[in-house]
Amino acid sequence: MYVLITYDVATGEDGGERRLRRVAKTCVKYGQRVQCSVFECLLDPAQYELLKHELAEIIDKEKDSLLFYNLGKNWKRRVERLGANDAYDPEGLLLI
Amino acid sequence: MYVLITYDVATGEDGGERRLRRVAKTCVKYGQRVQCSVFECLLDPAQYELLKHELAEIIDKEKDSLLFYNLGKNWKRRVERLGANDAYDPEGLLLI
Repeated sequence: MYVLITYDVATGEDGGERRLRRVAKTCVKYGQRVQCSVFECLLDPAQYELLKHELAEIIDKEKDSLLFYNLGKNWKRRVERLGANDAYDPEGLLLI
Repeated sequence: MYVLITYDVATGEDGGERRLRRVAKTCVKYGQRVQCSVFECLLDPAQYELLKHELAEIIDKEKDSLLFYNLGKNWKRRVERLGANDAYDPEGLLLI
């Protein structure tokens, strides 16, 4: 499954900047940053549950917001990119 | 169709703040802000094309990024919200 994760962290509060860094650091383990607070992740169901759990442990549920959008198998048909986007295809060939 | 729009605008540049305001103002006409730079919009195909066109006219394609994710009809099954989110159901009852 292809999952989009977007987040808003209340950085004006104590510990906000640290939570923001930890959220991004966690998402980087699972996928690709496509915008400042937006990640695209190719996950199996177990990874998805683990990622949600890890992020839930980091955020302040009163002040921060996390949104998960499961784009499913045919995610490529669902996404349109406009402007300065590094096209990213997690299933594409990795040329080394 | 239910479309998610996320954007990053280069506000450190000339005119960036103005572009950011105009992008948000345009998105507000079509849907609901769910995070700082994230909107959810319930659109028909014609509205979707119009919105994309309006936004394309505003952004600097070299510096700004716009991403559109079409979540389709069954969008409710695709979204999970964690933390400080005002649950929003564009198809829900509006109690006046």
